[in-house]
Amino acid sequence: MAKIAILGFGTVGSGVYEVLCRNAAGVSRRAGEPVEVKYILDVRDFSDRPDAHLFVRDIGVILSDPEVRVVVETIGGTRFAYPYVKSCLESGRSVCTSNKEMVATYGAELLALAKAHNCAFLFEASVGGGTPIITPMHQCLSANVISEVQGIVNGTTNFMLTKMVRENMSFDEALKIAQELGYAETKDPGDDVDGRDACRKIAILSSMVCGHHIYPQNIPTRGIRDISVADVEAARKLGCVIKLIAWMKHRPDGSVAAGVEPCLVPKSNQLAGVDDVFNAVMVRGDMLGDVVFYGKGAGKLPTASAVVADVVDALKHGVKIHDSLFWKPAEPVDGMLTDPTPAAYYVRVAGVAPAVIEAIYGYGRLVAERYDGCSYFVERADEKALAAAAKKVEAMGGAVKLVLRRLPEEG
Amino acid sequence: MAKIAILGFGTVGSGVYEVLCRNAAGVSRRAGEPVEVKYILDVRDFSDRPDAHLFVRDIGVILSDPEVRVVVETIGGTRFAYPYVKSCLESGRSVCTSNKEMVATYGAELLALAKAHNCAFLFEASVGGGTPIITPMHQCLSANVISEVQGIVNGTTNFMLTKMVRENMSFDEALKIAQELGYAETKDPGDDVDGRDACRKIAILSSMVCGHHIYPQNIPTRGIRDISVADVEAARKLGCVIKLIAWMKHRPDGSVAAGVEPCLVPKSNQLAGVDDVFNAVMVRGDMLGDVVFYGKGAGKLPTASAVVADVVDALKHGVKIHDSLFWKPAEPVDGMLTDPTPAAYYVRVAGVAPAVIEAIYGYGRLVAERYDGCSYFVERADEKALAAAAKKVEAMGGAVKLVLRRLPEEG
Repeated sequence: MAKIAILGFGTVGSGVYEVLCRNAAGVSRRAGEPVEVKYILDVRDFSDRPDAHLFVRDIGVILSDPEVRVVVETIGGTRFAYPYVKSCLESGRSVCTSNKEMVATYGAELLALAKAHNCAFLFEASVGGGTPIITPMHQCLSANVISEVQGIVNGTTNFMLTKMVRENMSFDEALKIAQELGYAETKDPGDDVDGRDACRKIAILSSMVCGHHIYPQNIPTRGIRDISVADVEAARKLGCVIKLIAWMKHRPDGSVAAGVEPCLVPKSNQLAGVDDVFNAVMVRGDMLGDVVFYGKGAGKLPTASAVVADVVDALKHGVKIHDSLFWKPAEPVDGMLTDPTPAAYYVRVAGVAPAVIEAIYGYGRLVAERYDGCSYFVERADEKALAAAAKKVEAMGGAVKLVLRRLPEEG
Repeated sequence: MAKIAILGFGTVGSGVYEVLCRNAAGVSRRAGEPVEVKYILDVRDFSDRPDAHLFVRDIGVILSDPEVRVVVETIGGTRFAYPYVKSCLESGRSVCTSNKEMVATYGAELLALAKAHNCAFLFEASVGGGTPIITPMHQCLSANVISEVQGIVNGTTNFMLTKMVRENMSFDEALKIAQELGYAETKDPGDDVDGRDACRKIAILSSMVCGHHIYPQNIPTRGIRDISVADVEAARKLGCVIKLIAWMKHRPDGSVAAGVEPCLVPKSNQLAGVDDVFNAVMVRGDMLGDVVFYGKGAGKLPTASAVVADVVDALKHGVKIHDSLFWKPAEPVDGMLTDPTPAAYYVRVAGVAPAVIEAIYGYGRLVAERYDGCSYFVERADEKALAAAAKKVEAMGGAVKLVLRRLPEEG
């Protein structure tokens, strides 16, 4: 009998408990022994529940019980989660978490701590919710050098963009529905719509690919607030949909680029058909080519089932997992991890006549003219050229309102 | 230093050798030690190669060398592969294979043998080529009860059907190109086009889901020989493409249904966009919902990279993998694992007037009329109703030329 503890009885934490109860037979068969929740840490009052005896408010109770072998952390944030997880690992207990903020910020340190104390630190549920991404990446692609990761990793914004594309909704209308359905925070939806959630996830995947810690603050991040109905319509004219793409590139010389930005995705690209709250991540290996992992990116039971799979792994394999998942500590770099590679771009410009746009941006085509400006498709530009063009636009009294990179046709 | 042996130096076997050489650094980091090929078993003459000293013709050399810890089997077929793999497992050596025929036929026995001798029997590369499917299924979905698997698992037929849909080619023309490109066997392309390859793969996945051996001979299997240009056109009218689908269902009462058959796939279904030699497998878990794994289903280096990932796993985890991958032996059942669930169907009938088709098949709509018959879309029928309708058609002097089930819109 393996005893575990759950820290935080919110959506995912209570889901972990539910999954362990409902699929107890399968879980214990695969773990090699029954798995039992001995403690649930939560400061709220659950004394009415039939299992009230499981609830504790002091992490010390869990840390001082040698029977507890694996700890599930589903508190979220870093204020409590980080010191609690540290203490658990230092006491030799494996930790399984869905907490992307903590992994993106302290992943290297916590992995090293786990290694030093002969236990596992696992976080499959931190990217893609229940969809397997992290385990296949470090385990099934272990014979590959990964050069690129590109995906849709935030279900809330993907739901909103799907509404905007399919029903011609504005950003504000789509946000309102996402909030009503509980997909977006009511108070401050910024983590989703400004791309911070996606940024943490691509920071985690980038760290795995590079083998050293990549920090969210070095990843240029833009959300979807500036996307208008007109942009969605212009994208359609160009045979594309607009998606919030999180990406990273790892070049043979070891250099890294990463970003979170709304992009034009050609309809022929696998990511174009990923709609609603679904997530999809494309990983490019040097031996394997492209693989895509697709599934629901959030939700109580899907996410919880990924946490429980990690619990099974921790019980079975323990520290041996680390050889492939491990990444080294590193300091944040100066500046941003931008990509100098030229690409095709869509730009929306105000206050400048369409006639001069080609002269400013180079070869391309006008997509739409509006009373206050125009949108233009640039066949080929890089970030430097785009910055120079923006300066020219400003010098003419205009303003660049939106820049969207176009992804390749396939991929 | 971990020493391994490769049995069979054909496409995949030589690919394994190449992957181990090219990505030696990453492989040894993840395996925790360098991995070295000590022997290659092949009866052909490789004495011209600089590494000729590695080649042996007698399995006894490998079996009597205690240094060899993991054996890669890439001979294919069962005549030599099966007894060799048995001997390797009986001597306590882990085996990693890409051989779907052997796994589909002897999987339960070989898994039991591995368990009894404290070693691993792994076969990620047997389904989906390099695309991770088996490992995510048994490991990342370990907290789920899987109720359904559905996918495109044969790259050759998917390439041919893509040609038929996009370029209005006939079956014969598409086959010729597939043969010229080396995707299909020149002598006897039956394994691919008659569905036997897909049948073996869905037998393996079904065995994993059910926990007991499911035999290929119990899975109703039809290939794509009967698909005509007219059927492709009719599918288009119905908003669908034709794909060779391998599927299985595991019901709560423990009963199993499985099949390989060309199906109408609605354009909104994730599998509709899977083209060319790509594979995609959808797995439905009770906690997770649907996940899809997508990537190249064949090819030397992709398949080899999956075999090498298994080698890394075998070196790291060994026998512990088995708790989740294991399935029990079982006898083949009498009859076929058919599915009684009603569905929508497309039928092409010759020698019967369109006017009487609705009376025979029930509510639906005429898709196309031809000089020699017609095609009809049946809103809802089951296998029994279809068999009864076919009898009526025959009684009227006609013949049912093709029956295609339509998959659901989503999934």
